Amino acid sequence: IEEGDRALLLEHVADLHASELGDVLEALQIERRRRLVSLLGTDFDLSALTEVDEQIRVDITEHMSNDQIAAAIGDMESDDAVYILEDLDQEDQEEILAKLPFVERVRLRRSLDYPESTAGRRMQTEFVAVPPFWTIGQTIDYLREDTELPESFTQVFVIDPTFRLLGAVDLDMVLRSKRSVKIEAVMRDTLHPIEAEMDQEEAAQLFEQYNLLSAAVVDQNNRLVGVLTIDDVVDVIQEEAEEDIMRLGGVGDEELSSGVLRTSRSRMVWLLVNLFTALLAASVINLFDATIQQIVALAVLMPIVAGMGGNAGSQTMTVTVRALATRDLDIHNAFRVIRRECGVGLLNGLVFGVLIGLAAGAWFQDVNLGGIIAAAMLINMIAAAIAGILIPLLLDRIGADPAVSSAVFVTTVTDITGFFSFLGLASWWFNIH
Amino acid sequence: IEEGDRALLLEHVADLHASELGDVLEALQIERRRRLVSLLGTDFDLSALTEVDEQIRVDITEHMSNDQIAAAIGDMESDDAVYILEDLDQEDQEEILAKLPFVERVRLRRSLDYPESTAGRRMQTEFVAVPPFWTIGQTIDYLREDTELPESFTQVFVIDPTFRLLGAVDLDMVLRSKRSVKIEAVMRDTLHPIEAEMDQEEAAQLFEQYNLLSAAVVDQNNRLVGVLTIDDVVDVIQEEAEEDIMRLGGVGDEELSSGVLRTSRSRMVWLLVNLFTALLAASVINLFDATIQQIVALAVLMPIVAGMGGNAGSQTMTVTVRALATRDLDIHNAFRVIRRECGVGLLNGLVFGVLIGLAAGAWFQDVNLGGIIAAAMLINMIAAAIAGILIPLLLDRIGADPAVSSAVFVTTVTDITGFFSFLGLASWWFNIH
Repeated sequence: IEEGDRALLLEHVADLHASELGDVLEALQIERRRRLVSLLGTDFDLSALTEVDEQIRVDITEHMSNDQIAAAIGDMESDDAVYILEDLDQEDQEEILAKLPFVERVRLRRSLDYPESTAGRRMQTEFVAVPPFWTIGQTIDYLREDTELPESFTQVFVIDPTFRLLGAVDLDMVLRSKRSVKIEAVMRDTLHPIEAEMDQEEAAQLFEQYNLLSAAVVDQNNRLVGVLTIDDVVDVIQEEAEEDIMRLGGVGDEELSSGVLRTSRSRMVWLLVNLFTALLAASVINLFDATIQQIVALAVLMPIVAGMGGNAGSQTMTVTVRALATRDLDIHNAFRVIRRECGVGLLNGLVFGVLIGLAAGAWFQDVNLGGIIAAAMLINMIAAAIAGILIPLLLDRIGADPAVSSAVFVTTVTDITGFFSFLGLASWWFNIH
Repeated sequence: IEEGDRALLLEHVADLHASELGDVLEALQIERRRRLVSLLGTDFDLSALTEVDEQIRVDITEHMSNDQIAAAIGDMESDDAVYILEDLDQEDQEEILAKLPFVERVRLRRSLDYPESTAGRRMQTEFVAVPPFWTIGQTIDYLREDTELPESFTQVFVIDPTFRLLGAVDLDMVLRSKRSVKIEAVMRDTLHPIEAEMDQEEAAQLFEQYNLLSAAVVDQNNRLVGVLTIDDVVDVIQEEAEEDIMRLGGVGDEELSSGVLRTSRSRMVWLLVNLFTALLAASVINLFDATIQQIVALAVLMPIVAGMGGNAGSQTMTVTVRALATRDLDIHNAFRVIRRECGVGLLNGLVFGVLIGLAAGAWFQDVNLGGIIAAAMLINMIAAAIAGILIPLLLDRIGADPAVSSAVFVTTVTDITGFFSFLGLASWWFNIH
């Protein structure tokens, strides 16, 4: 489709929703993607860029002139515009802002002044606000006449002359009230106004807890500055869950569209840390080289003890990290959960100790070996439970993100405990030094 | 607070939002929780139960009489009512439904007739619908007069006499149009009506892709049966991400409030599977017992090769599983991503092969050993990359959930490849059998 036939292309692209166009951009190769954008020219819907990976967004905006971006941004909703502007460098940002009409410019600059990942950055600065003494009738007439309304809205805010937030009226409330009713009679308290400086994650928690559809964003003086809508919050929730999964898997901020070098570099840090802990575990094994030389079966069995401990530890750790992220785990129930995990560790240790003891005893025809591996398995399962719950809790306590580093610490504990308890017990029992 | 003083208690609870009351219930111990609910009696807001773990919900409803539940459910929105009813056993469900007024009963039964986890189960059956020939004025008058309106709504649906869905009008559109305008003039196509039988996950994808706030739910004949709102969808998105995290960590459907036995049992399956794969890996080591007996350093170093491969494999697997879940990875880019992962595996294999080769060579003062471990590391890193991407893709292809079982297969591959390549290369190089 893409070899220059602009008219045909336009026909195809015109019907696409912004997110569908975004998907198309992601699927294309880099050269074709740039060509598509430049062919579309002013018909390219920039809001498609809010739906693609950061890398692609930056690449495309770099290949567009600032004039072109400014023209497109003028038509967009403010939250989408900020989303695109925040990734540009300072200089381009200023140049584009300078080309916009005054009101627009002030609005966007105010949003950009809030720190990254705050409610202020994500909010939409277009909203509808009326004074409390208006009637429903006046409000409806105002809505019918004003041409500067936001593209869509679900509530009308109520403010005093200094822009302080007094309350809000949902549109269905406006519709079911008589024309003569005063706004202040039907307005409800905005129970959960969001401070512009609030972290977007915290704001998302509020939305979830109170099933909000949209919420007023206010500055420190309780003046209405914008509105945060649930579609932006859904993205935040998605991103946060995504982040946790990636971090637990030892992967950084990579994107599916990143290249080999970039991806490789981002994963190397984690592997390097693991290399050190693996060397640490190896040096524990090295302490018992004489024992292994005499009983090679120990070398055959030791990865089982360490590995099972590692798996049990990750189970506990996954549950703990997730419960911390969703704030289900806090000071009120921490003690109960710790006790439960220790119970689970003890029980699973007993079950799998007996299982592996029988299996190993039968395999190598040696009751002693069976008993030793059973005991080591029990010890390591308990260690796994304790490490799996305490390490994330501790990391969370000292302000570190438990999703990032829990896994390294937990597997280090289970590897070392596993090797040390199994080989140590064996060399003590068989009296080898 | 809880020793019988109902009046004081009521005062405290009255101000709580349903979700806050839910949090209180979760924090309490089982006996106290039951006592709280029975003390509150008819003042207990059943919608708090939509915010707690399933186990707690079932426990509380079992301790309430069916009369009490029926009375409470009559006041609830239909989606919340279904949420609570679906966990009850058939008999109680029927008894409660029988106590409800006819219209309510028919609505709830229709929702319950749809399979679990479909849009039909999650939808709200209360909605506002008008014919296309009405004017905006008529619609507003109707909204002002009708007392049977849902508690809140954000759009008005347009239907024909047989309830077939024709379109929808957002409330802000109703408000900004003149009274004389016909509904059909301002209605928009509901581009994405959701079939009641559609899986809730699929429905959530639609909401995300098109930034919907609410969507019509229709039956096979395109007749409007309900409305799905974004607050329900947020819960679905959250649950799905949650599920993936838990499954990748080898944890089933356990809840934070589950007891030791239940938790232990749910985790045992995964550990049992891992025990078998660990035994498999051990039997690979056992093939080379003569080699290990002669060179104990091999036993010291072999967990490093296997472990690093395991970590690299989980990184690739995490990215793949996540990309499959969010549908970012599909047939269009699978080949490119596979190629990238192989590149990353090769590069990381070279880097870490050299690193561990130098470290091991220096540690044991043996150049041969260094070379062998370097080669084994390279082989295992490439195997890890291939397993990490192909196994989830394959599982997805045959219709299995890649999040559940990818980890076992991937670590089995990296363990066996790690041990086999390292010990095999060593016994071939040093010529030991």
